[in-house]
Amino acid sequence: MNRVYNFGAGPAMLPTSVMERAQREFLDYNGMGASVIEISHRSKEFEALLTHTDELIREISGLPDDFEILYVHGSAQLQFSAVPHNLLDLNPAHKAAYLETGNFASLARKEASRFGNITVAATSESSNFDRIPDFDPATLDPDTSYVHLTSNNTIFGTRWNQFPDTGKIPLVADMTSELMSRRLDFNKFGLIFAGLQKNLGPSGMAAVLIRKELLGHALPNTPNLLNYETYAKNHSMPNTINTFAVYMMNLVLQWLKEQGGLPAMETLNAQKAKLIYDAIDNNDFYIGSAHPDHRSEMNVCFNLQDSTLDKKFLDEAQVRGLYALKGHRLVGGIRASIYNAMPMAGCQALVDFMQEFAQQNG
Amino acid sequence: MNRVYNFGAGPAMLPTSVMERAQREFLDYNGMGASVIEISHRSKEFEALLTHTDELIREISGLPDDFEILYVHGSAQLQFSAVPHNLLDLNPAHKAAYLETGNFASLARKEASRFGNITVAATSESSNFDRIPDFDPATLDPDTSYVHLTSNNTIFGTRWNQFPDTGKIPLVADMTSELMSRRLDFNKFGLIFAGLQKNLGPSGMAAVLIRKELLGHALPNTPNLLNYETYAKNHSMPNTINTFAVYMMNLVLQWLKEQGGLPAMETLNAQKAKLIYDAIDNNDFYIGSAHPDHRSEMNVCFNLQDSTLDKKFLDEAQVRGLYALKGHRLVGGIRASIYNAMPMAGCQALVDFMQEFAQQNG
Repeated sequence: MNRVYNFGAGPAMLPTSVMERAQREFLDYNGMGASVIEISHRSKEFEALLTHTDELIREISGLPDDFEILYVHGSAQLQFSAVPHNLLDLNPAHKAAYLETGNFASLARKEASRFGNITVAATSESSNFDRIPDFDPATLDPDTSYVHLTSNNTIFGTRWNQFPDTGKIPLVADMTSELMSRRLDFNKFGLIFAGLQKNLGPSGMAAVLIRKELLGHALPNTPNLLNYETYAKNHSMPNTINTFAVYMMNLVLQWLKEQGGLPAMETLNAQKAKLIYDAIDNNDFYIGSAHPDHRSEMNVCFNLQDSTLDKKFLDEAQVRGLYALKGHRLVGGIRASIYNAMPMAGCQALVDFMQEFAQQNG
Repeated sequence: MNRVYNFGAGPAMLPTSVMERAQREFLDYNGMGASVIEISHRSKEFEALLTHTDELIREISGLPDDFEILYVHGSAQLQFSAVPHNLLDLNPAHKAAYLETGNFASLARKEASRFGNITVAATSESSNFDRIPDFDPATLDPDTSYVHLTSNNTIFGTRWNQFPDTGKIPLVADMTSELMSRRLDFNKFGLIFAGLQKNLGPSGMAAVLIRKELLGHALPNTPNLLNYETYAKNHSMPNTINTFAVYMMNLVLQWLKEQGGLPAMETLNAQKAKLIYDAIDNNDFYIGSAHPDHRSEMNVCFNLQDSTLDKKFLDEAQVRGLYALKGHRLVGGIRASIYNAMPMAGCQALVDFMQEFAQQNG
């Protein structure tokens, strides 16, 4: 079997060694004679797996003790509802400020607007989200309950290089496409959430890192399993947790630790992205989508000068084992998603192909 | 590797042939060079898998066309919030009637009470939920938006053999531990939901079968991903679906069809349950928990006359490869969960052990 280099934006490729291990033990977890997906979430073996996952997250990311780790149902988008339900009541004004940097930031803002007084504190919509907008936290109303941003924008290929200092107003970050790919100063954040399906595992679950003091403020009409306190009080198991997602995340985190953790991963991710961005910048055949100062290291988006060649590019790439390079339907073009699990060799194979394709079609 | 007979209540054992197939193709789905958990939910291959799953559900269950099939985030308990949000507004009185037959029925009722005017239309709490209570639908207020029941009670080992005819008032059934284990007359139901982790797949997702005319009535404050219409309008993919859960469910349904579908499965399940219930009834050493008229065919609950022997029973069973027979912490004793995937041989092995254990310790 030949594994392709899968540049899909998510659900995305996972480390091959992780996938092979999961395959080996798929019918027999820990010598139990049953799969990890067939055992009770209340078994001591699963409880140990969950606790080990907590430990790996803290060890790898340096998450401080005043944050709780929650594993919650649904993917990141369910958190678009959960965040306002849990945080708007931090201030009786029920205000929140959203920083609009793309499609998912916008969806999050729209959902929150159904429950509180939401403002757009900054947006880059006028340049079709090709950059991160300027934002001065001093402009925030002091009675703002929280500020929301999307740290990396998968569709437009931008990211926040530096995070704003919002002082006493909690900063909420959707890090679905970045969590565990870069080091973070947790002092700047109140809440971070991420669907797993980019850097951390399969789809269907989200991880939430929440400052403990932010728990316990949910609006009275918050559905029980959208209330983060429900999870915090029950080690994320008020009911049956997504056991497979926890297991896969655990294996991915073990792998990440073996790779040298976030310092090594951050360096590698920068090198991988630079390789492709250089190939774009050094050849007029290609045009980068994002402003150079705000380029994502997870999703490299670009266009061919001659967009009528897009299909040919994608078809020939696929023949070479370079899979799922098509840009999002909102923007078209080409997108190479290069999460943690994409090896340097995959990026090199893409760059080699880009150069050949440009030569043959330029 | 020796697979145990796993009598856990859920996440539960899945058919070994399904697990072996999932293992074989874990790194390479459909010749794509990537795992089914690594490909986009928007890929044509995944869309085909989802559509095939719909078709299998309809073919196996006989679900009529006026029902929509939804695959929703979270397990069954998130539906305890979603159901009132989606259905209470069917009548301006915002009333619903709950039939209380155990722990999960009670949790569902409590969650719904936060959003509407909820009454307990019948309960068997006074006999510690050892039976299904009498219920006369004629006693319902005509302005009731819906009636809710739990079709099979995993903790107490009871089930509704016959479902009430609630006429024009939609009947909602939590069938987490029964869906696809027995034939159903869908004419009696407005909405059926089930977490997958008993008969259908891994934990982390629920299937919802909803009469189309019940869509579009969600309360204004319904979180977007709790609104069934959001799923219905987007073939259950308003956002990233739990791709692994859909895949496993698809394999389980294929297996179910090969076994002869619901007629064959219903017959086998009745035989499996009878084998164990007979072993209980024919030996004073054991006492069945549920009233004989309301016995579950999925969860056989019983006690040892001498409960001080429980631990010995469980330990010796485990040595024999009979795993996870401990009763729920709310009731203690022994529980043998025998979902579709438990073969007759597993039930026979349990009965053999029960007889030996009674002989040696009676």
